[in-house]
Amino acid sequence: MTRSIYEVFLERFGVKVGDYVEIVYDGGKRLRGVLMPKTIFSGEDILILKLDNGYNIGMRMDRIADVRRLEPPWSRIEGVRKTVERPASLPRVRIIAVGGTILSRVDYRTGGVRSAVTPEDLFDIIPEVLDIADIETVVLMNKYSEHLTPGDWAKIAEAVYRAYRDGVDGVVVLHGTDTLGYTSAALSYALRGIDIPVIFVGSQRSSDRPSSDAAVNLLSALYAAGNMDVGGVFVAMHHTTSDDLVAIHLGTRVRKNHTSARYAFETIGAPPLALVKNLKEIRYTWLRDELSFVKRGGGSVEYRPGFAERGVFLLKFFPGMDPSVVRLVMASGIDALVIEGSGLGHVSQGIIEVLEEFIEEVRVFMASQCIWGRTNLRVYDTGRDLLRIGVVPLEDMLSETAYVKASWILGSFGKDYLDTLMPTPISHDMLPRSFPARRRCVDDWI
Amino acid sequence: MTRSIYEVFLERFGVKVGDYVEIVYDGGKRLRGVLMPKTIFSGEDILILKLDNGYNIGMRMDRIADVRRLEPPWSRIEGVRKTVERPASLPRVRIIAVGGTILSRVDYRTGGVRSAVTPEDLFDIIPEVLDIADIETVVLMNKYSEHLTPGDWAKIAEAVYRAYRDGVDGVVVLHGTDTLGYTSAALSYALRGIDIPVIFVGSQRSSDRPSSDAAVNLLSALYAAGNMDVGGVFVAMHHTTSDDLVAIHLGTRVRKNHTSARYAFETIGAPPLALVKNLKEIRYTWLRDELSFVKRGGGSVEYRPGFAERGVFLLKFFPGMDPSVVRLVMASGIDALVIEGSGLGHVSQGIIEVLEEFIEEVRVFMASQCIWGRTNLRVYDTGRDLLRIGVVPLEDMLSETAYVKASWILGSFGKDYLDTLMPTPISHDMLPRSFPARRRCVDDWI
Repeated sequence: MTRSIYEVFLERFGVKVGDYVEIVYDGGKRLRGVLMPKTIFSGEDILILKLDNGYNIGMRMDRIADVRRLEPPWSRIEGVRKTVERPASLPRVRIIAVGGTILSRVDYRTGGVRSAVTPEDLFDIIPEVLDIADIETVVLMNKYSEHLTPGDWAKIAEAVYRAYRDGVDGVVVLHGTDTLGYTSAALSYALRGIDIPVIFVGSQRSSDRPSSDAAVNLLSALYAAGNMDVGGVFVAMHHTTSDDLVAIHLGTRVRKNHTSARYAFETIGAPPLALVKNLKEIRYTWLRDELSFVKRGGGSVEYRPGFAERGVFLLKFFPGMDPSVVRLVMASGIDALVIEGSGLGHVSQGIIEVLEEFIEEVRVFMASQCIWGRTNLRVYDTGRDLLRIGVVPLEDMLSETAYVKASWILGSFGKDYLDTLMPTPISHDMLPRSFPARRRCVDDWI
Repeated sequence: MTRSIYEVFLERFGVKVGDYVEIVYDGGKRLRGVLMPKTIFSGEDILILKLDNGYNIGMRMDRIADVRRLEPPWSRIEGVRKTVERPASLPRVRIIAVGGTILSRVDYRTGGVRSAVTPEDLFDIIPEVLDIADIETVVLMNKYSEHLTPGDWAKIAEAVYRAYRDGVDGVVVLHGTDTLGYTSAALSYALRGIDIPVIFVGSQRSSDRPSSDAAVNLLSALYAAGNMDVGGVFVAMHHTTSDDLVAIHLGTRVRKNHTSARYAFETIGAPPLALVKNLKEIRYTWLRDELSFVKRGGGSVEYRPGFAERGVFLLKFFPGMDPSVVRLVMASGIDALVIEGSGLGHVSQGIIEVLEEFIEEVRVFMASQCIWGRTNLRVYDTGRDLLRIGVVPLEDMLSETAYVKASWILGSFGKDYLDTLMPTPISHDMLPRSFPARRRCVDDWI
């Protein structure tokens, strides 16, 4: 195999990717940082350095006078490696690549992020994965998650089911964060009762950025997939701004609540099931005793991967919403409508009239745009009117999960099952009670 | 005036509404609690007792053997009265009633809540209001907030403007909580620069329920309206589960984030501007120094109360969304579409094509369904495609506020101003930076 210009250049100075170096540049400027791998986007003659301040810089090789290896002031990868104790025999985990930022790199020409990494590339960047599990990889597709469809959910479910049938100890799905919660809900339905951990994971920053959460999220997801003693579909994402805690969220109750922060994901209405601490310890929250989970190896999956591609619409109510536009949606050929009502699950009088017109053909289900809390249509006149015309309230189910569930019921059972299955708790999508999972802190405001 | 059966009955035992009593009932049962006022819904011969455990109970008078006044083990109303120091001269505050739970009582026949209280009735239930301000009241309408329209926002703006012209020191608007944030945003635009406090307030539990937040919210709102030294449109609601803190939220950045909890409201992307502590002290957060606020009496209002009744649609994107349904919405005669995209502000390829088809006639603005964080269309290909076709990103503006703003621009300026005014920061609807307003607490989970 011929060596690249990049490799030849580094060899000249006796350094390699990952080294902490000082570079003498442009006739005297000195810069320190970590040598980054070449990307397929950076030019052949461009060297990428991750500076101490967190920024990446690209330098033309012909302007570089010297490169010297230094002792690094810090190194996350070294720190991580030390804390992972290699067990006698590693669990077998299959990584299924779907897409997203965790499989991306910064394009140094445009500054944008492009999807261009294989799972194997990830191992180059994060070699510690090989200490955590015996890994097999499948590239199923490479899509940003906003482009996924119910048909894609079915394909992902099938790939996970195949891994399960092949006897793996756990599955990790690499997935974009935008609609991660929708897909994790979909698999929570399609693979009900699965008795190995299926862990979705993404990252908010691409893996070649110094602030990337890709490494910690992926390593924690692998550890959870290999070592958790419960089965089910979960999401592993950064819990706080610090690196040492990754939360294991319930697949039907997780939501992306920040556009860019690494700790964007939250389990709604409950704490996460567990926290992975320092990549080597699983700490279950009290939720594990409150709800019932399938023990690892203690169940059998009920595999129903059908999802209707069309037929369900998710509609957010707002004051002043034009009933005639809602009429267009109701008459568009859908079988089910999930409404994000206001407060306990309300819409205006004009909308109620349109819903009533179509309710024989289009079943209507009510969630709340408040996100937290439970719908209740028995408190106010508006709610009682909605109950009277046949709208079905969904307790504390997330609207996004409700949309996925309706698509699953249509695809796996048929329209006649909507009314009974939608308000039936499945995979913790409706909780028997709400848990005090949120606290407010005011001390640092005043 | 003839006395009611209720009054005559209480008089017989020498007790009155608000007394803590022991009742001997049904031949021996003893119950303790606070005598509640008769409601127009309870039967003439039914006595309502608020028990120590928090529940209300109705008892037929002919089954009551004895009623004795006792020293109350606690009394929130007494506690409140003691802490309010009556100033030499009280500020003049106008209360404008719009509707909602704060103007409601439980209907003891159905268990539901019905809108049936005037501001004057509130004074009977919460007499302390008279210690806080010289109060004048206007009943503008009596609507639950899910039924309000942009035309109603204009009426409310007009009533507040009239109060301002009449020289009041502050205004309190009693309003349903469901769409409180939409209306407070509307008035933040319609009354830009107003140099007295306009405080929206609601309650999550009706005022005759023991757990009601009506009293604390109303008293705090009145105190803030009379005593804050900045002008602007704000929302006063319970901050925590404890009674002593009520937050003063920014009108354009407040959201109802729980269907039923008293602390449902949050300022998004920043701390609230202030906290009213124990009904007698305003503590500003550091936000007051970070952003610029109008000093009380130091500005002049720019009154523009026009809102388009139709013409704007707020649409939440979801994976698998049918482009043909979006086409129906785009072709329905609207002038502007506000999208709640996924993540940084994304939609699927099929939706982008539909938006592009109509973008000359229908201007498209992008917010995020993540709620927290900032849109950014420059990071991923999907975002750059949206920018290319002319979609305008709205930074950290709430989608609900964006919908209200578009309606205001159409109603007060005209369609040609959408592209310039929508992404222009007004009344703090877009912040120059995001503030660390949320912290996670994990200690109580494990």
